[in-house]
Amino acid sequence: MTYATPLQDFRFALNELAGLEEILKLPGFEEVTPDLVDAILEENARFVQQAIAPLNVAGDTKPPVWNDGQVTTTPGFSQGFADYTAGGWQGLQHPQKWGGQGLPKVVAAPAGENIQAASLAFSLCPMLTDGVIEALLTVGSEAQRQTYVPKLIGGQWTGTMNLTEPQAGSDLAQVATRAVRQDDGSYRLSGQKIFITYGEHDLAENIIHLVLARTPDAPAGVKGISLFIVPKYLVNEDGSRGKRNDVWCASLEHKLGIHGSPTAVLLYGAGKGEVGEGAVGYLVGEANRGLEYMFIMMNAARYSVGQQGIGVSERAYQHAQAYARERVQGRAIEGSAAPVTIAHHPDVQRMLLTMRALTEAARAVSYVAAAAHDKGTHHPDAEVRARNRAFYEYLVPIVKGFSTESAVEVASLGIQVHGGMGFIEETGAAQHYRDARILPIYEGTTAIQANDLVGRKTLRDGGATAHASIAAMRDTLKAVAAEAQRADTADHTALRVLRDNFDQAIQSYEGAVEFILAHAASNVRAVYSSSVPYLMLAGVVHGGWQMARAALACRRHLAAGSGDAFHRHKLGTALFYGAHILPRALALAAAVRAGDVADSCGSMADIA
Amino acid sequence: MTYATPLQDFRFALNELAGLEEILKLPGFEEVTPDLVDAILEENARFVQQAIAPLNVAGDTKPPVWNDGQVTTTPGFSQGFADYTAGGWQGLQHPQKWGGQGLPKVVAAPAGENIQAASLAFSLCPMLTDGVIEALLTVGSEAQRQTYVPKLIGGQWTGTMNLTEPQAGSDLAQVATRAVRQDDGSYRLSGQKIFITYGEHDLAENIIHLVLARTPDAPAGVKGISLFIVPKYLVNEDGSRGKRNDVWCASLEHKLGIHGSPTAVLLYGAGKGEVGEGAVGYLVGEANRGLEYMFIMMNAARYSVGQQGIGVSERAYQHAQAYARERVQGRAIEGSAAPVTIAHHPDVQRMLLTMRALTEAARAVSYVAAAAHDKGTHHPDAEVRARNRAFYEYLVPIVKGFSTESAVEVASLGIQVHGGMGFIEETGAAQHYRDARILPIYEGTTAIQANDLVGRKTLRDGGATAHASIAAMRDTLKAVAAEAQRADTADHTALRVLRDNFDQAIQSYEGAVEFILAHAASNVRAVYSSSVPYLMLAGVVHGGWQMARAALACRRHLAAGSGDAFHRHKLGTALFYGAHILPRALALAAAVRAGDVADSCGSMADIA
Repeated sequence: MTYATPLQDFRFALNELAGLEEILKLPGFEEVTPDLVDAILEENARFVQQAIAPLNVAGDTKPPVWNDGQVTTTPGFSQGFADYTAGGWQGLQHPQKWGGQGLPKVVAAPAGENIQAASLAFSLCPMLTDGVIEALLTVGSEAQRQTYVPKLIGGQWTGTMNLTEPQAGSDLAQVATRAVRQDDGSYRLSGQKIFITYGEHDLAENIIHLVLARTPDAPAGVKGISLFIVPKYLVNEDGSRGKRNDVWCASLEHKLGIHGSPTAVLLYGAGKGEVGEGAVGYLVGEANRGLEYMFIMMNAARYSVGQQGIGVSERAYQHAQAYARERVQGRAIEGSAAPVTIAHHPDVQRMLLTMRALTEAARAVSYVAAAAHDKGTHHPDAEVRARNRAFYEYLVPIVKGFSTESAVEVASLGIQVHGGMGFIEETGAAQHYRDARILPIYEGTTAIQANDLVGRKTLRDGGATAHASIAAMRDTLKAVAAEAQRADTADHTALRVLRDNFDQAIQSYEGAVEFILAHAASNVRAVYSSSVPYLMLAGVVHGGWQMARAALACRRHLAAGSGDAFHRHKLGTALFYGAHILPRALALAAAVRAGDVADSCGSMADIA
Repeated sequence: MTYATPLQDFRFALNELAGLEEILKLPGFEEVTPDLVDAILEENARFVQQAIAPLNVAGDTKPPVWNDGQVTTTPGFSQGFADYTAGGWQGLQHPQKWGGQGLPKVVAAPAGENIQAASLAFSLCPMLTDGVIEALLTVGSEAQRQTYVPKLIGGQWTGTMNLTEPQAGSDLAQVATRAVRQDDGSYRLSGQKIFITYGEHDLAENIIHLVLARTPDAPAGVKGISLFIVPKYLVNEDGSRGKRNDVWCASLEHKLGIHGSPTAVLLYGAGKGEVGEGAVGYLVGEANRGLEYMFIMMNAARYSVGQQGIGVSERAYQHAQAYARERVQGRAIEGSAAPVTIAHHPDVQRMLLTMRALTEAARAVSYVAAAAHDKGTHHPDAEVRARNRAFYEYLVPIVKGFSTESAVEVASLGIQVHGGMGFIEETGAAQHYRDARILPIYEGTTAIQANDLVGRKTLRDGGATAHASIAAMRDTLKAVAAEAQRADTADHTALRVLRDNFDQAIQSYEGAVEFILAHAASNVRAVYSSSVPYLMLAGVVHGGWQMARAALACRRHLAAGSGDAFHRHKLGTALFYGAHILPRALALAAAVRAGDVADSCGSMADIA
């Protein structure tokens, strides 16, 4: 099954929903013209379809092989990575000063989604490298930047994030890896890290690990964690590759999905290198601020993982749609002499439209978020910057949580569309279902995203950001209502359904925000029992908002004669979202309110 | 991870919800005492936990091996099957006349669920054998019954169902396997069947295939399909094993899950046996009525697959709960000095309670359905029989569709509770997620169940059965409302939430039934676009009904002093269902109504 970059939907979401034009006018992006963006996206599509998409199945069926600490990746991955970095794709969103192209996030977003759709397992290496680059650019010393960043952008080296330890999963307070200061100012690290994505591989000359560890005198808990650079090979003064450091890949995990991505157990200080005892590491920024720094990587990575959800959804959708259009089975429901393809059956259409609507809504929300990021960093007006930064930060846990939970649903529907064939591994639909399942877990589970959304993003500003979104949604609602009045007969009913369901969904969302605000002080358990339903509700409604805006834009183009088949189809998908997906807000809002009784249900049910 | 039969919940659902006592008084079950039922369930639990549950992981990791048409099953499966049949478990629900024990379905149900929970892959062989027994007892000739049934019940032989062909999945009109009559009255079959569960294996001396095929003069379509017995080895006059028949296992499928169950491609008439050209087969019943006969097997099998959903859910729940109670991570949300197990975290509790509530609700619905089956077949009053038969038949697609869709959700949550560990295959949570995914597909996809629910079960009787359920639900609602008035402070809020949400859910369900009835004549696409949401809605509300009855029974026991910790916990789970699961009815009802606009969304979106 091949993959086709959904370029038309990328463009639509960028131009009609994320306001690309406005972003390109911001200071710092003057050189980026709409034509350049278009050329980049087209070249990206060409490259990814040709060089990366074909790696996806091989990654699944011929996973990396560990042998005495060395890892040989899937055939083709090495060439794919060489081509990827040679094409300059690693540097897309990084500053020109360091060899990157300095493009806005809103342009890097579709390119990132595209490669993640093409091969999720492959894409993790560039994604983690991006995170390391971003962390070093933000908190690394000038010397560290000069040593590492150009080679990371150039693809000679790659990067990893080392957080998890066997006893410390989501709870980083328990990190126990030790870092002891040496006379020369460097550190020696010892400890074990697990779940290290691309922790060992043969795609590049060197691997730059960013490692959370604790110095002997550090305070307990998260306030005693520092961040260290630990290169697989030390770097000589002249930048050439030096001695093998004491970081050792003890094994690779046997995972449900993303088989093509080597997930390593790394031993630091096991005496396996050429540097004596302990892995040589270098403190990044100040001691004991490691967690704060790691969040720089994590926030970028969380956004990217959200995009992975969209990418996997898109690929699963294309897979299922192609099958549904080809598989002949049964007669048309209205009666037909000859058998028809299953794409004619109402429930197959419902499943395909659910997949498509969830995917396109999540995509739109993520591009809107990227645009907010760009305005938050580049807008000349400080007030606009602050407002957009808050909006972006509010959306990140939604992009991560909603898009990835949706991806699991979409990939599962993708199997269902295939019927029995979907359960056969060779069909390929099952790979998406297996791959997607990690997405709501890594880079912070959905519950962790939801706690972030409740705590730092909703309670901290007293609901101001949420309320601003609700007010803007009501403006869109008014426009939908006006359009529903005007509508020709064919779309009239569906537009009214969109209007009514969007109205109800906004009320549900508003009620949930009020619930969170009202209970924060008095009943913390109620609030955190409601946090995942609140996140999913926010996702459904923000997705609905963007789909409502999409419907309006499509109607505008169609009325003005600038619309085509794409706009008609997109309008159908948006109307479907309104009819089928938005009503989920009602159930989710009830689940939020159920936080009230969480305590009695939970303690009676003796879960703990 | 071991598996513990949830005997207490079995007993509760049987006694308090399914009305076991009443069933045991029906003519034909006089010899079955409550004590006997209890002894059977205890012995079943002991046997299954000891002999079958340990096979589950081996089935996954050491799947059956094909070699030149022969299949060697997973180590331990052969002994497990020998023990299973030696214990008399295959005959539980079959007549004593043929070597069975003639127990009511309501007793066979928990035993069946139990083995399916213990090892889904293993359980498929006995399940299909049950279907063959039931078909032969219903439509086989006396000679056929005598030849095959005792050995199928005794476990010397096993049975299979052969429907699917490469071009004929859900659409049996396209079955092309040919059966040509011979002078001696037997037939010779030729063709290819795929997805044949336990189509080849080494668990028994012989395999009795029931095969759908077409005689040369048969009409086209489903009205020209006949049912044939095709034994792997012919049976001599004296009942001993004869020549190898011309049915040949060409390969086994490489599947996402249920690895332990060999899924065969079978070639009939490939010239591989000792009987010359074509597989020797024997017509069952009358020619061209094969589909009707196959439905006898399928209806029983659909109920059983629904129970598989409950079994897999139960096992996934136990797995996740055990991990959550053992894994220490993070502090308590209300503040705690020491780290706590993750079972203390609100969202982990929400996930575990969702898993438990969905599982117990589906179980209760399935036992209530089994009781209706028993009353429908054994009650002396014809009117009561007819009413119960209609109720049972209404519930079968719900048991199949709702329990299996829930199983996918529950198994997915099971991974999520484990966090990153859930994605590692050795943890075992991923197996449930992979295994569960076939359940909404085989024996008729959820859409096929939903079409059955709409067409044969709702429209055919003008909604009478659905309306009867709704009236009975309203009686339960009244009792819940009365109890909510009476309730002590602790449960008061939760009981009111249950009352309100149950009330709304019944209204949603009633509205959906009205929608289906109102649109059946005018807009068939609207109705069948709404069918899966209607099925899921019916599942949510029927589950809620039983959980509401469970809550009332628990309150009764607790008030009377006959309640214990089990009843307190069960009450908590029921209240959670009321607060978190029942509100899904609102979203599903909206999706049913969205059938109205399916045509405009679908055609605009260009899915077909």
